[in-house]
Amino acid sequence: MYAVEVRDHIMIAHSFKGDLFGPAQALHGATFVVDVAFFREELTSDGVVVDIGRAHDALKATLQPLNYRNLDDLPQFAGRNTTTEFLCRHVFDAMADAARAGELGPGSEGVTRIRVTLHESHVARAWYEAALSRA
Amino acid sequence: MYAVEVRDHIMIAHSFKGDLFGPAQALHGATFVVDVAFFREELTSDGVVVDIGRAHDALKATLQPLNYRNLDDLPQFAGRNTTTEFLCRHVFDAMADAARAGELGPGSEGVTRIRVTLHESHVARAWYEAALSRA
Amino acid sequence: MYAVEVRDHIMIAHSFKGDLFGPAQALHGATFVVDVAFFREELTSDGVVVDIGRAHDALKATLQPLNYRNLDDLPQFAGRNTTTEFLCRHVFDAMADAARAGELGPGSEGVTRIRVTLHESHVARAWYEAALSRA
Amino acid sequence: MYAVEVRDHIMIAHSFKGDLFGPAQALHGATFVVDVAFFREELTSDGVVVDIGRAHDALKATLQPLNYRNLDDLPQFAGRNTTTEFLCRHVFDAMADAARAGELGPGSEGVTRIRVTLHESHVARAWYEAALSRA
Amino acid sequence: MYAVEVRDHIMIAHSFKGDLFGPAQALHGATFVVDVAFFREELTSDGVVVDIGRAHDALKATLQPLNYRNLDDLPQFAGRNTTTEFLCRHVFDAMADAARAGELGPGSEGVTRIRVTLHESHVARAWYEAALSRA
Amino acid sequence: MYAVEVRDHIMIAHSFKGDLFGPAQALHGATFVVDVAFFREELTSDGVVVDIGRAHDALKATLQPLNYRNLDDLPQFAGRNTTTEFLCRHVFDAMADAARAGELGPGSEGVTRIRVTLHESHVARAWYEAALSRA
Repeated sequence: MYAVEVRDHIMIAHSFKGDLFGPAQALHGATFVVDVAFFREELTSDGVVVDIGRAHDALKATLQPLNYRNLDDLPQFAGRNTTTEFLCRHVFDAMADAARAGELGPGSEGVTRIRVTLHESHVARAWYEAALSRA
Repeated sequence: MYAVEVRDHIMIAHSFKGDLFGPAQALHGATFVVDVAFFREELTSDGVVVDIGRAHDALKATLQPLNYRNLDDLPQFAGRNTTTEFLCRHVFDAMADAARAGELGPGSEGVTRIRVTLHESHVARAWYEAALSRA
Repeated sequence: MYAVEVRDHIMIAHSFKGDLFGPAQALHGATFVVDVAFFREELTSDGVVVDIGRAHDALKATLQPLNYRNLDDLPQFAGRNTTTEFLCRHVFDAMADAARAGELGPGSEGVTRIRVTLHESHVARAWYEAALSRA
Repeated sequence: MYAVEVRDHIMIAHSFKGDLFGPAQALHGATFVVDVAFFREELTSDGVVVDIGRAHDALKATLQPLNYRNLDDLPQFAGRNTTTEFLCRHVFDAMADAARAGELGPGSEGVTRIRVTLHESHVARAWYEAALSRA
Repeated sequence: MYAVEVRDHIMIAHSFKGDLFGPAQALHGATFVVDVAFFREELTSDGVVVDIGRAHDALKATLQPLNYRNLDDLPQFAGRNTTTEFLCRHVFDAMADAARAGELGPGSEGVTRIRVTLHESHVARAWYEAALSRA
Repeated sequence: MYAVEVRDHIMIAHSFKGDLFGPAQALHGATFVVDVAFFREELTSDGVVVDIGRAHDALKATLQPLNYRNLDDLPQFAGRNTTTEFLCRHVFDAMADAARAGELGPGSEGVTRIRVTLHESHVARAWYEAALSRA
C-alpha cells in the first residue's frame, strides 16, 4: 500500500461541555497541525498516489472555514464537542468528499483509505483512519 | 478507527547480553521518548477516545518505576535484555492493564488496540502494537 | 556561555485589535509550545546552570494562570494584544522574577540572560531574549 | 506486532515527465529523509526485531548508489518518474532483498512486513508498506 | 531583543566545483527548509515585530525564482558554488531588501537584524545572521 | 556571521553526586543528540564555513570514546558530575582542538566561535557557546 501525506494547520478557539474536560470546559484554543494521508494500492501511470499540490489545496480549502474561528460559533458544530478526535473525523469526511469528487487530480479515483492526524501539542495528538466508501 | 496518543519520557541505564549487541554489551543508557496510542472504533458520548489527562497520568505511573534507574537491577527484568522493543511490550502490557481497569476514564472500556513507540534517538525507534485482549 | 532550556505548553483563546491582524481579529486560539533558556557564564559547583527540575516547575507555575483560558478575559492583559511576541515577554518577566527570587535552586543567582521562545505552529515562532537586570 | 525503524537520507536531482507535475517537470532536487521499519510478530531470543546496526548498514548500502546523483541519469530508473512514492518502493524492494538474504542479522528470517517512508519536506512525505513475500 | 521567525521550503538541483566537495561535485539536489528570523528591539504599537503574514509572503516571493530549478542554470549564481551557507546569504540579502522596502508591513522600519537558516537534512543546517544596514 | 551545524548522538550511563539531583543521583542514562555549530565571519573561497563531511567525522571521533559507556568509569571525568551542561563543554573543547588542528579542512583556520548543544529529551537541552581562543 502506498500513501502520500500533506500538512497544514489551523488556529482556533473552542470550549468543551462535560465534567470530563475539567479546565478545558472554559473557552480556550489550539493550534492544530493537520496531516492528511491518502492511501492507494498502486501508483498512477504518472507514478503518484495523488497530485500532492492538489492535495495541499484541498486540505487548505477544508481548513479555511475553521481557521481563526471560535468553533463554538459555527453552526455545523452546534451541540458537539469539537475535540481533537472529532475534528479528525470532520477533516476526514471533507477529504473523502474531495477524493470522491476527483479534486486531488488523477489518482483520486483509486484512493482507498484516508488518515487524518491532528497534533495539538508536542505531547498529544489524535487521528482517524478509515476506508473510503464509494457509492 | 480513532486514536489518541500521549508522550512522556524516561532516562535509564542498562546493558545487553549477547554478541549481537557489540559495544552495547557494556553498561550504557538511553533517553526513551515514549508515545502511547489508544485506538477505539467510535468516540464516547463526550467525543473522545479516552481522557487525555488520565492517559498522561497512567503513562507517567507506568514509567515512574523505570525512570532514573539501572534496568539491570530491577527484579522484574532479571535475565532479560531490556531492548527498546522489549520495553515497548512492557509499557504496552501496563497500559493494557490500565485500560482494562478503567483508569483512562470513560472510554477505557472501548479501547480495542494500543501501540507503544519508544524513540531512542533521532535515527532509531521501535514500537509494539496489538489488539487489547479482554477476559 | 552555558544555557539550559526547558519546554512546556499552553492552549489559549484570544483575539487581536487592529487592521493589521486581518482574520486574526476574530476570536481564535493557539497552542504555544514554550521554551525557556537560562544563561550563565560558569557552572555551579554541582556542574549545572540551574536545577532543571525546578526550572520546569517555575515554568509550569508561570503558565498555569494562562492555560485553558481566554486571554481577552484576563485583567493583566487588558487593552493589550496578546501576540506571540508579547507573550514571550510576559513569560520572560515571570521567569526573571523566578531567577531573582532563587526559585530555580542553586545557580539562580548567576543567571545573566533568559530567552523565551513560543512556537505557535510548525511554520512560525517568536522569542524574547534579554539580560537579567538585578537591583 | 513489533517494529524497529532506522533513518538515513539522500540528496538527489531529478525531473518529472507529465503535465501533472507543473514546475516539477524542470530539473530540480530533494533531500529525502528515509525511514525503514521492519515488522516481526515476535522478538528473537536476543529480544530484538533485527540488529539495528545492520539495519542501518543495509539502508546505507541501498541509498549509496542514489546519493549525490541525478536520478534521471541512472539506467535502473530509465523511463520512470522517480517520484517520492516510486522511490519508497525502490527502497522497499532493496530492503526486502536484504531481509531475505539475512543481511539484517538474526531476526531477518522472521521479518513479515516492511514500511519505507520518505520525507521530502516539513509538509510532505510518502510511504510504501507491504508484507514481505518469500519464495 | 524580540524576534519572529517564519518557515518555507524549496526543492532544487545544483552541483559544486572543487575537490573539497567529493561526490557533491556531481549534479545532485536538496530540499532546503528555510527559516527567516526578524529581530527588533521593541514591539510596534500593535504588539508585533513585523506582520507574520507579510513575512511569509516576502519569503515565498524570494524563494519562488529558486524553487524547482537547477541553480547551476541561474545567471545570478554563475560561477558560484550555491552551498547551503551561500544560499543563506542570498535569502538574507533579499529579506533585508524587503525589510528596507517596508514589505513586511508596520514594523519593517525597526528591524535591526535578520537570521536565515537553511536545514538541508535532519543532521545538517547552516545560517547567516547580521545587522540590517540602512542607508 | 555564518554557521554550519552537524548532528550525531551518544547513548551513555552515569550518576550524579549532590542532593540537588534527587533521583538522578542513582545510576541512570541518556541519549544525547549532539549539535555542533561552527561560526565564521566570511565563507572560504569554496563558499563554505568548514567541510561538513569532515565536521561530521570530527564530531564522531570526539563522541566515540563516550558512546555506549558508563561515564562514571571514565578517568577523564573522575570526580565530576557529567551533567548535560558539563558534557557540552567537554565536546566544545574537543571540537575547538579539532578546529585549531585544521581537522575540519579548509575553513578551519577561520572558525571564530563554536556552540555545542546536547538534547537530553523532547523537553530539555543545554548548550555551551564561546569564542575559539587561538595561541
